[in-house]
Amino acid sequence: MKGSFSDFPDAVEVISGNPLKLDSMDQVETRYFNFAEPSENLDLESGEKLGPVTLAYETYGCLNAQKSNAVLICHALSGDAHAAGYHAGEQKPGWWDNMIGAGRAFDTDRYFVLCSNVIGGCKGSTGPASLNPATGKPYGLSFPVITIRDMVEAQRRLIDFFGIERLLCVAGGSMGGMQALQWAASYPQRVRSVIAIATTARHSPLQIAFNEVIRQSIMADRTWRSGDYYDYGPPDRGLAIARMIGHITFMSEASMEQKFSRNRTQVLKGIPFDPEFEVGGYLKYRGNQFVKRFDANAYLYITRALDYFDLSGDRLISPDGVRDARFLIISFSSDWLYPPSQSQDIVRQLKKGQVDVTSCELNSSYGHDAFLVETEGQTTLIRNFLSSSHER
Amino acid sequence: MKGSFSDFPDAVEVISGNPLKLDSMDQVETRYFNFAEPSENLDLESGEKLGPVTLAYETYGCLNAQKSNAVLICHALSGDAHAAGYHAGEQKPGWWDNMIGAGRAFDTDRYFVLCSNVIGGCKGSTGPASLNPATGKPYGLSFPVITIRDMVEAQRRLIDFFGIERLLCVAGGSMGGMQALQWAASYPQRVRSVIAIATTARHSPLQIAFNEVIRQSIMADRTWRSGDYYDYGPPDRGLAIARMIGHITFMSEASMEQKFSRNRTQVLKGIPFDPEFEVGGYLKYRGNQFVKRFDANAYLYITRALDYFDLSGDRLISPDGVRDARFLIISFSSDWLYPPSQSQDIVRQLKKGQVDVTSCELNSSYGHDAFLVETEGQTTLIRNFLSSSHER
Repeated sequence: MKGSFSDFPDAVEVISGNPLKLDSMDQVETRYFNFAEPSENLDLESGEKLGPVTLAYETYGCLNAQKSNAVLICHALSGDAHAAGYHAGEQKPGWWDNMIGAGRAFDTDRYFVLCSNVIGGCKGSTGPASLNPATGKPYGLSFPVITIRDMVEAQRRLIDFFGIERLLCVAGGSMGGMQALQWAASYPQRVRSVIAIATTARHSPLQIAFNEVIRQSIMADRTWRSGDYYDYGPPDRGLAIARMIGHITFMSEASMEQKFSRNRTQVLKGIPFDPEFEVGGYLKYRGNQFVKRFDANAYLYITRALDYFDLSGDRLISPDGVRDARFLIISFSSDWLYPPSQSQDIVRQLKKGQVDVTSCELNSSYGHDAFLVETEGQTTLIRNFLSSSHER
Repeated sequence: MKGSFSDFPDAVEVISGNPLKLDSMDQVETRYFNFAEPSENLDLESGEKLGPVTLAYETYGCLNAQKSNAVLICHALSGDAHAAGYHAGEQKPGWWDNMIGAGRAFDTDRYFVLCSNVIGGCKGSTGPASLNPATGKPYGLSFPVITIRDMVEAQRRLIDFFGIERLLCVAGGSMGGMQALQWAASYPQRVRSVIAIATTARHSPLQIAFNEVIRQSIMADRTWRSGDYYDYGPPDRGLAIARMIGHITFMSEASMEQKFSRNRTQVLKGIPFDPEFEVGGYLKYRGNQFVKRFDANAYLYITRALDYFDLSGDRLISPDGVRDARFLIISFSSDWLYPPSQSQDIVRQLKKGQVDVTSCELNSSYGHDAFLVETEGQTTLIRNFLSSSHER
């Protein structure tokens, strides 16, 4: 397979390792990997083909000579390739900076950490807002159906390009955890270990229900125009509602009580039914912020990929699959979106397949958001798990 | 106080009891009680006044000579006065027909049962879709802020009109339970017993959060026009989304799993992102059905009343309040919208106030909807509770 780096001067050196050693992790940048030849088109689960494809990705730490220390980080629904460090001029680090870096859970002194934006998204990888080469206009709804398997397939190309035969680990929370599980199902021989956090092997009807309302709220916005809004302005109001719904499910009852209780806001006069309680004001704010950084069609495509996800039964570990990958399954006590019971289901499946699995339900009041903020408990578990995986 | 019946030929007979004896409960009709004189205006909790006021109500069974057998049923968010029996020509009985009737939990052979539509609603009682006498046009957002206390205040006028000094019982589920608790707080001397089902003494931040998104989704519909849509057509799409959100919270994870699992629907070609799973199709159907029978502004006003509701601390039973009303508090194991823990909070408050309280958490997989469908368990509890209240 060919493939090319854009915005990246010395690809050869990357693979040999040194230039990406970032001692401070202070400054990182997103890079782009393209596979553009017709022969390189992605064969999607739907039967359709997708190409050319760009993957936005970042790397932290050095790939060792044996290429045996690579850890692939997979992001959640609205995440991106910028998992750690700082972009030039920005105040906020990547979304999992508390977990990735020198001395951290994913220790960049020891491991070569990669994170790429999923296809179907809108953070640099090819998605419905990308230009359709057949028309020269954004794909919109002519973008093909994407599944979690397809996201993993695109990542596999990137891993191939780096010449990594076997990942030390694939890790992620929420949708990132699904991708990690999918790696084990799609390429059992190419992962030594899997860390799946706050996730499920199968989207439940409740999870589908939330996503359905999320999609309907985007489509109910009359400016959505069947996905063909790029020349007119996006369906901001619908997308903001969608994100508000999401945010409710990311928190726990306890964290809402602690953070907001029934505290009132200052209501703006002249705005009827402006939120009167802090919790409502917070949700509205988060919804309105979100529309500045996310594409509504990408939200439709990715939530659908989530809903399709089903590695229940023997689909996670096929009877003839390789069984020497190890698994670490982490859940959080107050997570009601991807509750501990779903992690227990994963563990049961793995044990039935006679797979080496460690699991832990961490106590947290942060609900589903816990995987982003509960640094200490996760660090202990992940550091030990990675060390023992590395030494095997 | 004056007051008049419209659509009701012989009010005097009502009070004496016989004409409303409905042996079969087969056919009932909604009646209307008006208080229209300026002196009869409702003093609202906000400080504003509301009038003229119409209350839609139904009654079942006979009021006895002592007027000691009256049970007031309070409905939930989207309920109405039609709690039991059949309207002429309709196939579907009232919303709590399984609980109200001869030999049922609220036994119309023994009790005189009343149910009235809340003010602020849209099922016959005065609400934002009613004509504002000052303008001759629908109130829209010029309708005053309504609280649960105001709803109870309007019901109190109806009870006065019937000459009932003390209700044998006030009962309801969800928002109906809040009204029942509010009766005990507002008029402790006028209720002998209270049945509060699947409810709370205080809307939590999570409950407020869902209602906030519900309101925002209505207002995000550009046809809402700041509530002034009556001449143009209602914000159906926004209201449908709102109701879909609500429906998710009415069910339980177990009931969704049982009813829908991950079953697929037949997708209509040409409708992009049409629901592909049964659970999504169901929600969309329910949302679209709902807009035919409910006013969007009423949904805004009533959800706000819910969010304001807070009888926590000593507000439920004031230190100088009468304490001889008895309480029955019922919750359902799988109800995560008004979870058993909130019922336990009510019980704790009542016990602290040295009030006679019985409570029960019924096992059910129906989530919040359980109060509408779990006939058997509720019937046993309520029948015994009412009997002993009546005999005291």
